[in-house]
Amino acid sequence: MPSLKPKGRVACIGTGVIGGGWAAHFLARGYEVIAWDPGADAEAALRRLIELAWPALEELGLDAAASPTRVSFAASLEEAVEAVDFVQESGPERLDLKQRLLAKLAAATAADVVIGSSTSGFSMTEMARLAGDASRLVVGHPFNPPYLIPLVEVVGGERSAPWAVDRACAFYEAAGKSVIRMERELPGFIGNRLQDAVWREALHMVAAGEATVEQIDQAIMDGPGLRWALMGPCLTFHLAGGEGGMAHMLDHFGPSLKEPWTRLEAPELTPALRDAMVEGCEREAAGRSIGDLVRERDRGLIAILKARQALAPDAAPGVEAVQD
Amino acid sequence: MPSLKPKGRVACIGTGVIGGGWAAHFLARGYEVIAWDPGADAEAALRRLIELAWPALEELGLDAAASPTRVSFAASLEEAVEAVDFVQESGPERLDLKQRLLAKLAAATAADVVIGSSTSGFSMTEMARLAGDASRLVVGHPFNPPYLIPLVEVVGGERSAPWAVDRACAFYEAAGKSVIRMERELPGFIGNRLQDAVWREALHMVAAGEATVEQIDQAIMDGPGLRWALMGPCLTFHLAGGEGGMAHMLDHFGPSLKEPWTRLEAPELTPALRDAMVEGCEREAAGRSIGDLVRERDRGLIAILKARQALAPDAAPGVEAVQD
Repeated sequence: MPSLKPKGRVACIGTGVIGGGWAAHFLARGYEVIAWDPGADAEAALRRLIELAWPALEELGLDAAASPTRVSFAASLEEAVEAVDFVQESGPERLDLKQRLLAKLAAATAADVVIGSSTSGFSMTEMARLAGDASRLVVGHPFNPPYLIPLVEVVGGERSAPWAVDRACAFYEAAGKSVIRMERELPGFIGNRLQDAVWREALHMVAAGEATVEQIDQAIMDGPGLRWALMGPCLTFHLAGGEGGMAHMLDHFGPSLKEPWTRLEAPELTPALRDAMVEGCEREAAGRSIGDLVRERDRGLIAILKARQALAPDAAPGVEAVQD
Repeated sequence: MPSLKPKGRVACIGTGVIGGGWAAHFLARGYEVIAWDPGADAEAALRRLIELAWPALEELGLDAAASPTRVSFAASLEEAVEAVDFVQESGPERLDLKQRLLAKLAAATAADVVIGSSTSGFSMTEMARLAGDASRLVVGHPFNPPYLIPLVEVVGGERSAPWAVDRACAFYEAAGKSVIRMERELPGFIGNRLQDAVWREALHMVAAGEATVEQIDQAIMDGPGLRWALMGPCLTFHLAGGEGGMAHMLDHFGPSLKEPWTRLEAPELTPALRDAMVEGCEREAAGRSIGDLVRERDRGLIAILKARQALAPDAAPGVEAVQD
């Protein structure tokens, strides 16, 4: 893989909520940012966004080289990407626009510069269709706001070079993101697939009069969602199996998979699926016993409950539980 | 509704992980607990569970009357419920056992004592089948561990009296829980329906080789799950609509509901469903502007990221984002 300067210069192409959020993140992590957006007043809006985000970024801890002033606004796309180490594309979410923008970016950048697209749904195979050199085009999908939510999902298209996917992962990791490198293109990537399953079940429940919007939000926030900032759904269920972990959970509660507890049909619990779940949890646990994991989760829950209590003593339901 | 002593005496029938967790919660909130469980060594196990939970409960803040010693173990079910204000039933999750246990409890309690069942899936209509007087039997479904996760879902069966459902809600609220009162029986209640939608999509993705267990957990923890301890999925999407909120979100992104982003089919976005979602979010926002909500969310995210950082500087993926 070609070498990558640890704190170099990044182009942010498109500076709306997502692109501007990326710019704020890169600045906080010590990078220099060259921005470009054809919108009227885009520069002023970007500077406002960075100014608003900066106190949060300071509180979380800045890189030694970080400064909100290390951003400049280029007069053209070509000028913006002329001498950068990485390009983050956050244009409007329209396939034809993305195709033209990415083709231009591929043509305007040096042969070792990787271009990550913030698209939330298109595949790079589709988006790269008009690009002459598509080898350096990859998806780098963030969650909003990119300077607070760590996740970025990285995946190449059919014509992306493996070294470019590697390099995008290394770049995002060096920039402090939590990177998932996907081995294949999948509509909605991983995070949105999971998020959309909840969202669709919620819509069905409201449509059928089974629950209100408020009940759904309360159920997530004061129930399973409270745990998910600490531990994903798989490791959470690993703990539900007691000392036997995920293996016990699937072997004993597997039959309840067929209960009508959501509108989504469960898959067949084949031995291969069972083993994949068990082995995945064991890798994640990395030697920690169920007891260790329970203690970690509980310490995390206490920290989150206390943080919620400090933030909004009256507002959030369930906070009564820790107030009296 | 008959009067309810603010800090009275609660019977915990069944003292495994859930029933014992309830006992720890009630003790921390200043109640006296009378426990009963037919298992060998049940009393010693309960005392151990309370002892292990107590430091966490102290850290979250105890009621003035709270003491880990205000628990006694009864010699029989009848003795346990003889002079209590509320009964929490947490027996094994088997329908025939629940039916017999609840019938006994209904017969052994005074006519103003409500019995809440911790069942995670059965309806009270089914469970109350053998009870002579089923009017005081209601579901009070907690999440594990009951002394840390605030949610309890309350719903009656066909023969439950409305006053008993009211009283269970008032009791749990006084005991510091976040209560959802459901108007109708629904398999899996609300929290498990939503949780199971994620779980099933996760199982499908692993079965199809689309994502690993670790990627799924990382996607939730460092992505959407990080927000859900603060704000449920509906209010989260209210913010995704910008100043137009949920109305803008549904009117503009509604068509993407049909994208194949999860295996769960989306419902038809009828005008009635659209309005229910919009009005629900407006009630939840309770006058707070999108800007207010964004600021609240971001303060919460910073608090959670800092709490995670303090808890596990190296372990959790994504924590790099706040360390450098």
